[in-house]
Amino acid sequence: MINFSINKNLFLQALNTTKRAISHKNAIPILSTIKIDVTNEGITLIGSNGQISIENFISVNNENAGLLVTSLGSILLEATFFINVVSSLPDVTLDFKEIEQKQIVLTSGKSEITLKGKDADQYPRIQDVPTSNPLVLETKILKDLINETAFAASLQESRPILTGVHFVLTDHKNLKTVATDSHRLSQKKIILEKNGDNFDVVIPSRSLREFTAVFSDEIETVEVFFANHQILFRSENISFYTRLLEGNYPDTDRLIPTEFSTVVTFATSALRAAMERARLLSNATQNGTVKLEIEGGVVSAHVNSPEVGRVNEEIDAENVSGENLTISFNPTYLIEALKAVNSEKVTISFISAVRPFTLVPSDQEEDFIQLITPVRTN
Amino acid sequence: MINFSINKNLFLQALNTTKRAISHKNAIPILSTIKIDVTNEGITLIGSNGQISIENFISVNNENAGLLVTSLGSILLEATFFINVVSSLPDVTLDFKEIEQKQIVLTSGKSEITLKGKDADQYPRIQDVPTSNPLVLETKILKDLINETAFAASLQESRPILTGVHFVLTDHKNLKTVATDSHRLSQKKIILEKNGDNFDVVIPSRSLREFTAVFSDEIETVEVFFANHQILFRSENISFYTRLLEGNYPDTDRLIPTEFSTVVTFATSALRAAMERARLLSNATQNGTVKLEIEGGVVSAHVNSPEVGRVNEEIDAENVSGENLTISFNPTYLIEALKAVNSEKVTISFISAVRPFTLVPSDQEEDFIQLITPVRTN
Repeated sequence: MINFSINKNLFLQALNTTKRAISHKNAIPILSTIKIDVTNEGITLIGSNGQISIENFISVNNENAGLLVTSLGSILLEATFFINVVSSLPDVTLDFKEIEQKQIVLTSGKSEITLKGKDADQYPRIQDVPTSNPLVLETKILKDLINETAFAASLQESRPILTGVHFVLTDHKNLKTVATDSHRLSQKKIILEKNGDNFDVVIPSRSLREFTAVFSDEIETVEVFFANHQILFRSENISFYTRLLEGNYPDTDRLIPTEFSTVVTFATSALRAAMERARLLSNATQNGTVKLEIEGGVVSAHVNSPEVGRVNEEIDAENVSGENLTISFNPTYLIEALKAVNSEKVTISFISAVRPFTLVPSDQEEDFIQLITPVRTN
Repeated sequence: MINFSINKNLFLQALNTTKRAISHKNAIPILSTIKIDVTNEGITLIGSNGQISIENFISVNNENAGLLVTSLGSILLEATFFINVVSSLPDVTLDFKEIEQKQIVLTSGKSEITLKGKDADQYPRIQDVPTSNPLVLETKILKDLINETAFAASLQESRPILTGVHFVLTDHKNLKTVATDSHRLSQKKIILEKNGDNFDVVIPSRSLREFTAVFSDEIETVEVFFANHQILFRSENISFYTRLLEGNYPDTDRLIPTEFSTVVTFATSALRAAMERARLLSNATQNGTVKLEIEGGVVSAHVNSPEVGRVNEEIDAENVSGENLTISFNPTYLIEALKAVNSEKVTISFISAVRPFTLVPSDQEEDFIQLITPVRTN
């Protein structure tokens, strides 16, 4: 029967990381528990929602953990409740002791709390992913890729494949990441420093958002493994599994235009602020669009809501070339596209009022392009 | 037709204060608007939900406002929407100009936003309260009184009078403030520095909570006026009106015991933390109580939930006198009582397991007492 003592704050931090995979209202009740595995090497905390699984290891050699294991075993505890109880304990250390009938006694200071646990055998097995020949990625680069693309994935289940982000490695070093909800698209390409085996997978955007929350910036690199419709991201202490989406991702390369009739460079923040003002009123219009007018080198934004009012605004443009153009689109797509850009300036290139326009950071050497589809208005 | 220019940030701050009286989903649609009155002296912003009304005045003499009035008038604007629009404006100043058909044009930097307003005549009249012979109170003292009592008022409309806080001034200087939901009671008495006319009113606790949010700590004093089932709190720029509750407040003086069999002094924060742990498990019990045992000078807390587990904890007590006692109560009431106390130590005095116990700050000279009713368990 389990017995260990540990630093409360480190234990709580590991529990909270693991809890990111646990949903309180899972259709499978056992998945609302956290699994605690205690071995001579340390403690493994396991959580899963069926889609994402997290294993978090606390080593007996981790000096900050102050972990002393005196007896081994496994148990399941109601995750949210257990974490609240640990968080409420008075002392900096806690003693965790299993007693009869799968009960555990937490002792900390003068406080003694007994909780009912469940048999660890009830917990589903997390699918194994063979861990050989890893692809090693810098965590920051992977998180940047996710932040630059995942927001453009679809939130609707009508075309499930579009709820994922398409990751493709070709020539062992060219990584393309792309997401689209069919109204807008975001694609980032990078060249890996270390070669890896080619792959072509679609990762649920929700899993990727959890990934960015679970892997803190202190974790410098992650190893990536694929197998059996699963992907595993692994750092020294954390294993993060997610299911992959099945099906063919649409060919997005053919969507990206290369010839344009009008090109404008904007200050990213000024354009975003103008679009946020426009959105206040476009939300009250029938088609929810803002109209951008480019005429004689002057760019202006217009919204007219018969019920609420109207916006007319000249937007500072740093460089306007090509033909005059009037185009309407949903300002939210442009706002979210601009949020994903770190560059101070962006270049937007148009073909016509009815063809998607592209947005690229203008003062960086990145291979990062976004597409937004206009809305036809009469 | 209205025309003025003003500093955007100061205007926004005043709008947000006024908005505290405005409910987005009021049964009377016109109350979702904010009324803007422009005179040669300045701008008055008016909001109301029928229960609370706020008038906020920005003077042309306020240097931070940079207010320049060139034309007078009144208009109504959809509050939430108008505030979002003002908040989105690019420049530090804005120009507000009424044009035909109750429309207003906001100009700021290169942005021009036109909004539809409504005729100010549609706005209900805020009841007048004669402003003679004010009671002058320090804002901080009044806010402390509210924080120490209003939480104990009832949230249920079954006895509407108990949703208010009873304010009674006797002998022109003795102010008693008391609230109870019939399970617990909180009473604070102070002696006013300046005499006032005696009064006996019940103020809705919800209005008092808004009062504490509207009157910032920089406002040193407020004038208080009563009339026609209304109360007006007034500072230099803000008039805060609220309706009073009608009906007789129960006689609470007779509830407060004066003789006790057991008295214990606790460190406020340690007792609160112990109760928060107890509450985690008491929430999962049938009657939701914690059992406090005082025996031979040792105080301990116990909860036993057949489903979830149990807590047993010794609580450091600084001073234990009188008879042994076992008493059960809802830990939330004690937690909220302790939150209202600034003192580092509290003294709790018991009569028996079935009689309310009292809680007073032990190292202060205040006249502040709270009562909590125990729960009979078998």
